Amino acid sequence: MTTAKRDTYTPETLLAVAVDVFNERGYDGTSMEHLSQAAGISKSSIYHHVTGKEELLRRAVSRALDGLFAILDEPGAQDGRAVRRVEHVTRRTVEVLMNELPYVTLLLRVRGNTGTERWALERRREFDQQVSRLLEAAVADGDLRADVDIRTATRLLFGMVNSLVEWYRPQPEGSVERDQLADTVVRLAFEGMRAGR
Amino acid sequence: MTTAKRDTYTPETLLAVAVDVFNERGYDGTSMEHLSQAAGISKSSIYHHVTGKEELLRRAVSRALDGLFAILDEPGAQDGRAVRRVEHVTRRTVEVLMNELPYVTLLLRVRGNTGTERWALERRREFDQQVSRLLEAAVADGDLRADVDIRTATRLLFGMVNSLVEWYRPQPEGSVERDQLADTVVRLAFEGMRAGR
Repeated sequence: MTTAKRDTYTPETLLAVAVDVFNERGYDGTSMEHLSQAAGISKSSIYHHVTGKEELLRRAVSRALDGLFAILDEPGAQDGRAVRRVEHVTRRTVEVLMNELPYVTLLLRVRGNTGTERWALERRREFDQQVSRLLEAAVADGDLRADVDIRTATRLLFGMVNSLVEWYRPQPEGSVERDQLADTVVRLAFEGMRAGR
Repeated sequence: MTTAKRDTYTPETLLAVAVDVFNERGYDGTSMEHLSQAAGISKSSIYHHVTGKEELLRRAVSRALDGLFAILDEPGAQDGRAVRRVEHVTRRTVEVLMNELPYVTLLLRVRGNTGTERWALERRREFDQQVSRLLEAAVADGDLRADVDIRTATRLLFGMVNSLVEWYRPQPEGSVERDQLADTVVRLAFEGMRAGR
């Protein structure tokens, strides 16, 4: 059953609705019927915009991935000492996560049952590997500790950063809380919780 | 449809099967039929052991919660400077997580749709709050940095620790990797990734 709401969706606004439903029900648990109910338009109206739910998933995770990969092209990630670059990438990853919260949340929950999901997992791995290589370079420079396995450090760093999708509640852009949170993550990840260092 | 396998389950072995199914399909997505298929015994055989899937969930998350709360009663969590106690709790939380991986994984995925799930969430919050209070005491002692909000630090610490359920693959107890991983988490959380401190 669908209501008779007129279809005034743009690709972006329909995507926003779909991402919320995916995050709520899980991608596997979402049918076109669920999407139609949430959007308040008929299934055929949705098919007017996209070929199906997998296209919506692909667009949604692409938005998250594009945001993350764009960080690696920023001057702060390209120039200067590796440790500064990796701090920049960490800070910006937190910011992209806050700015694109539902899209990154969906990306982090992808399991790999469909081609699109496996592609998304592969891209996530590529991003993590690029950060790993930066960490390695910073260890080689003597700026990061050499007594910790890089693969484990990368996972724990992303464990910390990605946990935001579980507890961060959106704040207006430019708010003090947002800036502080990005600072706090960088400080704890690189300097730790101990005082007097 | 169930096979005719004889019911040789104990409460523990049946629980282990159920936890795997819950983690695979999600608790909401698991029916008694799924449990019956996975266990290879009839639904009525399962009802011989438990009143239903919610009792299995309660037992499973209790096992995880009991393991976590027991840490807080250990001498290492009770005696000495707060910073040492919180380091002990962090290290032991990683160990409980590795020892009880499927049970803690389930606990961390609980959403709060049923009474048991809400109870589990409440108990998790209590555990987090006790760790928060230890962190606060360590800040008051001057051992942990005072320039970071305790609530955020607690969340990021657990974000790092709990991420293990996403990527840790079980290793034999007493293996070098296991001990190193607990060390690494404590080191990164308290001292950070920076070298030369």
